[in-house]
Amino acid sequence: MKLASKAAMPDLETVVKDIADEMRRRPDRGEVASYIPELARVDPSAFGLVVVGADGTVAASGDCETPFSIQSVSKVFTLTLALGKAGDRLWRKVGREPSGSPFNSIVQLERECGIPRNPFINAGAIAVTDEILSGHEPREALGEILRFLQFLAEDSSIGIDEAVAASEQRTGFRNFALANYMKSFGVLDNPVDFTLGVYFHHCAIAMTCQQLAMAGRFLVHLGRDPATGHSVVQPERARRINALMLTCGHYDGSGEFAYRVGLPGKSGVGGGILAIAPGKASIAVWSPGLDTSGNSRLGRIALETLARKMGWSIFG
Amino acid sequence: MKLASKAAMPDLETVVKDIADEMRRRPDRGEVASYIPELARVDPSAFGLVVVGADGTVAASGDCETPFSIQSVSKVFTLTLALGKAGDRLWRKVGREPSGSPFNSIVQLERECGIPRNPFINAGAIAVTDEILSGHEPREALGEILRFLQFLAEDSSIGIDEAVAASEQRTGFRNFALANYMKSFGVLDNPVDFTLGVYFHHCAIAMTCQQLAMAGRFLVHLGRDPATGHSVVQPERARRINALMLTCGHYDGSGEFAYRVGLPGKSGVGGGILAIAPGKASIAVWSPGLDTSGNSRLGRIALETLARKMGWSIFG
Amino acid sequence: MKLASKAAMPDLETVVKDIADEMRRRPDRGEVASYIPELARVDPSAFGLVVVGADGTVAASGDCETPFSIQSVSKVFTLTLALGKAGDRLWRKVGREPSGSPFNSIVQLERECGIPRNPFINAGAIAVTDEILSGHEPREALGEILRFLQFLAEDSSIGIDEAVAASEQRTGFRNFALANYMKSFGVLDNPVDFTLGVYFHHCAIAMTCQQLAMAGRFLVHLGRDPATGHSVVQPERARRINALMLTCGHYDGSGEFAYRVGLPGKSGVGGGILAIAPGKASIAVWSPGLDTSGNSRLGRIALETLARKMGWSIFG
Amino acid sequence: MKLASKAAMPDLETVVKDIADEMRRRPDRGEVASYIPELARVDPSAFGLVVVGADGTVAASGDCETPFSIQSVSKVFTLTLALGKAGDRLWRKVGREPSGSPFNSIVQLERECGIPRNPFINAGAIAVTDEILSGHEPREALGEILRFLQFLAEDSSIGIDEAVAASEQRTGFRNFALANYMKSFGVLDNPVDFTLGVYFHHCAIAMTCQQLAMAGRFLVHLGRDPATGHSVVQPERARRINALMLTCGHYDGSGEFAYRVGLPGKSGVGGGILAIAPGKASIAVWSPGLDTSGNSRLGRIALETLARKMGWSIFG
Repeated sequence: MKLASKAAMPDLETVVKDIADEMRRRPDRGEVASYIPELARVDPSAFGLVVVGADGTVAASGDCETPFSIQSVSKVFTLTLALGKAGDRLWRKVGREPSGSPFNSIVQLERECGIPRNPFINAGAIAVTDEILSGHEPREALGEILRFLQFLAEDSSIGIDEAVAASEQRTGFRNFALANYMKSFGVLDNPVDFTLGVYFHHCAIAMTCQQLAMAGRFLVHLGRDPATGHSVVQPERARRINALMLTCGHYDGSGEFAYRVGLPGKSGVGGGILAIAPGKASIAVWSPGLDTSGNSRLGRIALETLARKMGWSIFG
Repeated sequence: MKLASKAAMPDLETVVKDIADEMRRRPDRGEVASYIPELARVDPSAFGLVVVGADGTVAASGDCETPFSIQSVSKVFTLTLALGKAGDRLWRKVGREPSGSPFNSIVQLERECGIPRNPFINAGAIAVTDEILSGHEPREALGEILRFLQFLAEDSSIGIDEAVAASEQRTGFRNFALANYMKSFGVLDNPVDFTLGVYFHHCAIAMTCQQLAMAGRFLVHLGRDPATGHSVVQPERARRINALMLTCGHYDGSGEFAYRVGLPGKSGVGGGILAIAPGKASIAVWSPGLDTSGNSRLGRIALETLARKMGWSIFG
Repeated sequence: MKLASKAAMPDLETVVKDIADEMRRRPDRGEVASYIPELARVDPSAFGLVVVGADGTVAASGDCETPFSIQSVSKVFTLTLALGKAGDRLWRKVGREPSGSPFNSIVQLERECGIPRNPFINAGAIAVTDEILSGHEPREALGEILRFLQFLAEDSSIGIDEAVAASEQRTGFRNFALANYMKSFGVLDNPVDFTLGVYFHHCAIAMTCQQLAMAGRFLVHLGRDPATGHSVVQPERARRINALMLTCGHYDGSGEFAYRVGLPGKSGVGGGILAIAPGKASIAVWSPGLDTSGNSRLGRIALETLARKMGWSIFG
Repeated sequence: MKLASKAAMPDLETVVKDIADEMRRRPDRGEVASYIPELARVDPSAFGLVVVGADGTVAASGDCETPFSIQSVSKVFTLTLALGKAGDRLWRKVGREPSGSPFNSIVQLERECGIPRNPFINAGAIAVTDEILSGHEPREALGEILRFLQFLAEDSSIGIDEAVAASEQRTGFRNFALANYMKSFGVLDNPVDFTLGVYFHHCAIAMTCQQLAMAGRFLVHLGRDPATGHSVVQPERARRINALMLTCGHYDGSGEFAYRVGLPGKSGVGGGILAIAPGKASIAVWSPGLDTSGNSRLGRIALETLARKMGWSIFG
């Protein structure tokens, strides 16, 4: 029976290609994010999918070489950096629970004295950025974040889309509200403009699916960089980052993502999702249309199909 | 290196015993639930831990043969039953997202037209019970739930603690509020008294850690009953029940449980927790003292230790 | 100038008749309450207006002799009774602030430990009814409320519409939710069924505009019954009941009513409003169509016109 | 009896003096506002009370000539100005209902699309300021507000306490949050910094009780300036401003103020309250200690005593 099962084992490259082909044909793509003017210009028909397996093999299909704005996917990497710098002290200013509200809600902050519920909603990621910034100039902090991503993806060409950063800086009133609100409770240590400046810029980092899937590998391998074998984070910390991605990585659609896809993942309003199959693969998908929770609509469906075909659920 | 790793593999029985010994000594046990008068009488120093491995071996320590009120742990089994009866129609009356609020909160219901966020908060479990009840007499529905548990645990001695059921029936005003509130939105099909009668009684089922760990085995084995090899639920459904336990199984402490323990689990205010290590083990722990989120304080700590020592996280 | 002003003084009878004529012609009548099935049967074109002046003269027009369900207007009289029995002890279980939410909201109760914000939202009126009930049988308490209204209106024919009471008893799940919720916080002293039984019945009292305007006279005269000269309540208490009517008498439309009409008033979902011009007149209006806040749409417009034409604002 | 009543008519000057004497002796003064550092420096034992009667007579006692920061009392005057400029268009961006929440709550804004509930909570007053600012430079708008107050009070010496304005500008993060939040919904037309600059400065206007009572006279006289006889606002508008003061003038203590004092009033966290007895008197009181709702504790008690002794309730 084991042999039979092996015989039926699907070929990853074929699966990835089939999914990309199917997704490119689907008409129900959701709406491209419009609240940041610059993001609204993206081509809604784009679709890319890259899987980097545990052994380093890469399966890629679709628009895999087109850089897109990673937006909130960057929060996985800033969380990793901030935990490396502050350790468990980070949890003084941000919680670890799903929020039960939209990504930019301010209601929860009022109820809970300005402490955001988790590092993956906007308020929480702003608090994490504030921790990274402490003791540095904004420019230095941003440089550190960017170099960390270049290092993880083994690609020094990764950069920031300044037009997107400027667009959000001009129009991100909701984030100004969140940051000032936390500041009023003493949760932020740095000037609001500094913290938000770094935040807007790291959200505006542009990456391809290829680069993003590479950057996620350390979460597949219990915190080790598979290229060098060096530890990026301790194994326990890697597990915990995965846990947070599972419970909080898709805003108020996190339960649905866990239910359907069964893998830790983090989405961004640019339409990207990074998903991790622990011990098996790092996956990046990109489709700009969003569902009502602000997550990539086809991205989630592609991941659901991929996980089912490959048998990659963490739940059995 | 693999051999070395195997050599260091901890012995399950020793681990279980050590944990039970340590937990019995800890003074910081949390508070026993007092809102149901009958529950307040339980011995706060009780502690039991049972692990049923994938191969059927059992490791048990502490008060493993003492029946306790499983309370909300029963929601895993009523959800399984209801999905078997109603299939995905169940999701018309209950969602799949973490709630971001305490177990008995009514606020979310007002915002979301009487649809509870998930099947594991009280309101959601009442809606699930209502689905099981449809077309039956309360007595029949309750019998079905009880027989399902007896079947899963292979133990026909499992019964209901009528004193606890009566105590909750007399004093469960908050649940009467939740049920009537949902009824006002048309979410419940049956008379409130019928639905709550069944709900209070299935929460009052008394089980030992031994019985509870046995009953959870189908979630370890992708929905199959390991004793008979028969399917209890489809593999995909078993995974999804595990996913819901992970994101929603500990009320507003679900994120923390995922972060620290890294396994799907469901707690009850009686102090019990059922946790699942997919493919590896079904685990039941019982310690009556609760933390501020209403979950067993030492139960969670014991599971965190067990998972770390055995390397059982689903996150890598 | 004073003479001129007097010469221009409008004739009350003409004003009342003109308003009723205009209101009968208006097509924009709002929606008749449908959440109590029995109330939905009422004729939406009905309109009645009665003013009882300080000197006892009566100006009436329209359907003034048709009894309608006074619903929440009864809360003015139960508050008066409860204050007479419990005095300021009543305020242990109910507040005095506008609610900022719809009439049947339960959210505020969760935030404030089961204490309703004021006696004129449903939860608050249930708490007031509970106070009246204490130490009595439901039948006695209800009899006391009914006799109080008969006494104030000088009309022993006032009775309860049993069909409406039974309709609400069968379908008033939201009120069952509110009452059980308060009970869970220990705010209600009596069994929920008893308190709600009395509550549903006093809301189902049927009165004509004529009777209602008569019953409100003591609030015009600083608490004195103008017929007998006897004190119904102390002057200070009469002022305070008027104050509560102004700030809380129209649910989440109370600010709008104060802004537009400028008189204390209390509305009911049966379409009735009792308004008080202190020292000048007691006014009852009835038009069954409601606005989005649950207040009589034409009733409010009629009162706005009446107050403006007669110069009866309390605000100058 | 009327004669007797007249004979018993209390002498205003004596009443005012007695109240001031009593208030100066009371130890229970509440807490001075500390959230604006500069305000925390004020002498907590200060107390002033000034009544300007309808005939122009002035009764004053205590620290009547000491300027204090009027803070939110300024909102009465900015509302008056904005209504003069925008008329009923103002109500597109601000409501007229009590908020049911603290003065600086942001929760309501999320539920209601960034539209503040009324012009007297912070968010509402910021929206009103934004309306005054439209088409002007901040400096011009501020000059207009200041001149309006100087005109009403007949005192050109009224000015702005720049230290208070600067203190709030540096630390008013909560107000920055509110303004950015409204801006994200498109409720504010001007740059957030401009609108808040004007807002912080008009809140920092310093006035004596004497000046404040003079400035309130137009609300006693149906909108007319009693000195010149000229109309400041139309009678209906004056009534409506009084109505808003009554229902919303004391944040989440507005119901209590209406219940106890029975007069329209507006408080500020500087400890000042302006109260209006329509047709009778304009009253300013100042005592820096605040109650838990953020209103002057002794100020409210003084007004309650004054209104009771003078028989000045608007409720009968």
